[in-house]
Amino acid sequence: MMKSDILELETKAKEAKAASRRLADLATGVKNKALSNIADDLLSRKDEILAANEADYKQAETSGMSAAMLDRLQLTESRLESMASDVRAVATLPDPVGEIFDMRTLPNGLIVGKKRVPLGVIGTIYESRPNVTIDISSLCLKSGNAIILRGGKEAIHSNTALAGVAQQAIARAGVPDGAIQFIGNTSRELVSRMLRMNEVIDLIVPRGGAGLIEFVRENAAMPVVAGGIGVCHTYVDRAADIAKAIAIAFNAKVQRPTVCNALDSLLVHKDIARKYLPQIAGEWAREGVEMHCDPASLDILGQEKSLKLAPATDDDWGKEFLSLVAAIKVVNSLDEALEHIERYGSGHSEAIITEDYGAAMRFLNSVDAACVYANASTRFTDGGQFGLGAEVGISTQKMHARGPLGLKEITSYKWIIFGTGQVRP
Amino acid sequence: MMKSDILELETKAKEAKAASRRLADLATGVKNKALSNIADDLLSRKDEILAANEADYKQAETSGMSAAMLDRLQLTESRLESMASDVRAVATLPDPVGEIFDMRTLPNGLIVGKKRVPLGVIGTIYESRPNVTIDISSLCLKSGNAIILRGGKEAIHSNTALAGVAQQAIARAGVPDGAIQFIGNTSRELVSRMLRMNEVIDLIVPRGGAGLIEFVRENAAMPVVAGGIGVCHTYVDRAADIAKAIAIAFNAKVQRPTVCNALDSLLVHKDIARKYLPQIAGEWAREGVEMHCDPASLDILGQEKSLKLAPATDDDWGKEFLSLVAAIKVVNSLDEALEHIERYGSGHSEAIITEDYGAAMRFLNSVDAACVYANASTRFTDGGQFGLGAEVGISTQKMHARGPLGLKEITSYKWIIFGTGQVRP
Repeated sequence: MMKSDILELETKAKEAKAASRRLADLATGVKNKALSNIADDLLSRKDEILAANEADYKQAETSGMSAAMLDRLQLTESRLESMASDVRAVATLPDPVGEIFDMRTLPNGLIVGKKRVPLGVIGTIYESRPNVTIDISSLCLKSGNAIILRGGKEAIHSNTALAGVAQQAIARAGVPDGAIQFIGNTSRELVSRMLRMNEVIDLIVPRGGAGLIEFVRENAAMPVVAGGIGVCHTYVDRAADIAKAIAIAFNAKVQRPTVCNALDSLLVHKDIARKYLPQIAGEWAREGVEMHCDPASLDILGQEKSLKLAPATDDDWGKEFLSLVAAIKVVNSLDEALEHIERYGSGHSEAIITEDYGAAMRFLNSVDAACVYANASTRFTDGGQFGLGAEVGISTQKMHARGPLGLKEITSYKWIIFGTGQVRP
Repeated sequence: MMKSDILELETKAKEAKAASRRLADLATGVKNKALSNIADDLLSRKDEILAANEADYKQAETSGMSAAMLDRLQLTESRLESMASDVRAVATLPDPVGEIFDMRTLPNGLIVGKKRVPLGVIGTIYESRPNVTIDISSLCLKSGNAIILRGGKEAIHSNTALAGVAQQAIARAGVPDGAIQFIGNTSRELVSRMLRMNEVIDLIVPRGGAGLIEFVRENAAMPVVAGGIGVCHTYVDRAADIAKAIAIAFNAKVQRPTVCNALDSLLVHKDIARKYLPQIAGEWAREGVEMHCDPASLDILGQEKSLKLAPATDDDWGKEFLSLVAAIKVVNSLDEALEHIERYGSGHSEAIITEDYGAAMRFLNSVDAACVYANASTRFTDGGQFGLGAEVGISTQKMHARGPLGLKEITSYKWIIFGTGQVRP
């Protein structure tokens, strides 16, 4: 790493800090115009973005990147359209900055309440998915935060192109210079340096694999909101509607297997296993899903020669597959399912499929995870799907914010107090 | 530190974790009864509590503890009454656990929202003020969190007595064993050990001096919410009502100078300084306030022989005095006051005294601090005063919660999703 890279990082961080002070007061109209410009330019400049992405993709393919990672890396015209539409969705959301809440008059006449304010400067360190560049930039802009983007080397061309598009689009709308900073150096040493800049960066959001997140957690001097590791269970209760249970487990595993909210383990109540398992296994098999089965489920499915089956090992429980693999376990009760999830879940997304009202309510109440579902696919854990426009990330921690991080979740507040001369007795 | 102390800490932490699971579902009525028992017992067992406190006080006095620290340490019958009344106030507050918010139906029919849940186990490391033992225990109990209390050695007798009272009072109401844990070992090594227990302790709240807070921030493996260092400014604008400005600055400095929300620096607009400064200085002098003056204020006050004046040094700006000392500076404009506060404030509590509406609104908008006041004493920054019943601490950070930490601020939430078979398209 060269001295000039460090200098560049420090300069960009200081520019971000300076910009953040002006962003905090920026008119909603200017922010929305900037977002609308980003959406326009993603489409009008699609050729140059896709060309940059193509360069990354070819390089990644040559270097032997896994299909899962290649899928996360790839941009297509339809993915660009979906990114632009997410940006427009952020523009239509209410501006979180300045929101007044919990305000009331105290018996002594003081008017006390909270006013929502930006956090300041957010740094993000992310791997692979280039749409993160735009998602996070949009949310930070709308919430009055400056952003320092540091993407991975596998997407460097795509990220450079996307960040350039965003920077030029917002400048045209009159957003202060420095609001979106992009770090082109992809070395780990530069990340280490960034993680020590707690005087300038108020929050770090790592997005990527477990290794990256652990590295950031251990080395960051500033607060970190992390998550994204999703070991997601779907529990098919004895009182499940079989058709729903098939549709949901199929969707949760197959619709996009490379992401954190995809199904990893399927838990099935013993009373319904003989009826349900062959059906879902047949559906999954047609999409190429490999099934790692506990003894009881292997006993049920073992005769089916068309299935890709393997006996589950201890490692399969609590594993995030990020591919067309699912672990399957037959449980004796809802209690056993709850215990299994408590032991092996990562606190991301968990689902029960049941028509038993009491079982559904008990599951929703008992499971300690960011998102707990009754009768729906865990694939919905997503800022866009939850109506937040997009997401900065998905938090599996309990502090500050949990689950998809939208606009509110990257703000703070201050107490404001209107007095008329009050003193404390 | 003995091996048995570590073992005891680990056992207590595990008991707290086990208790936290049951506390999360504890009925509001049981929690309120437990709080009411604590309040009763603080009064009915006051002799033994005050005797324990007397032992601490004598020892501290002999060891040469400062008047400020002695004041923080001391319990009196009236302080016990006030503690009991704070506990009863917590009982009357709505139970935060289970609160449902942001719930709505999405276009696809999914019902999505958030449900408030406890954080789990909170650890607190605190110095001196024994009322913290009761304040934090009450708030944790009401919010369904287990608490591990580790107070300072200077208050060991008081804290042991108070924790014992609380533990017995809540047991009588049927709260699960282990909800309130007290660590009698006051060594720094045990704190270090506690700060590594991130598997069991979900949040650490340090309360004490800058040294303690820095130590905790640097060594804690779990999230920390810290603050409490208050370098508080009161700015008397050119358009201030003189009588209000005198009453407020007097109250902010004198009413309890040993706490974090007391006034440290008085900033006075040049146009009002000649009229205002001699009056507030005269009031302060009668209470023994020592004034560290910048050249302009020294020029105004220098002739008054009855005042305790000294020229301000660079160290006086940004200093938390915690005693009857105030720094005084004459400023040329609201802008200069804002710049001074941005540079020297600790983000705790800042006030403007003015009858100029625009100046008040600008100050409230611009100052980046946990609590920003117009025309009131900064002494109001307090959970009890803000109607939160009591406080776990006062956060000067922006993440998770800012300002006084009441019940809501020591909770998290989970997303709950009611589906009817939805899958992601």
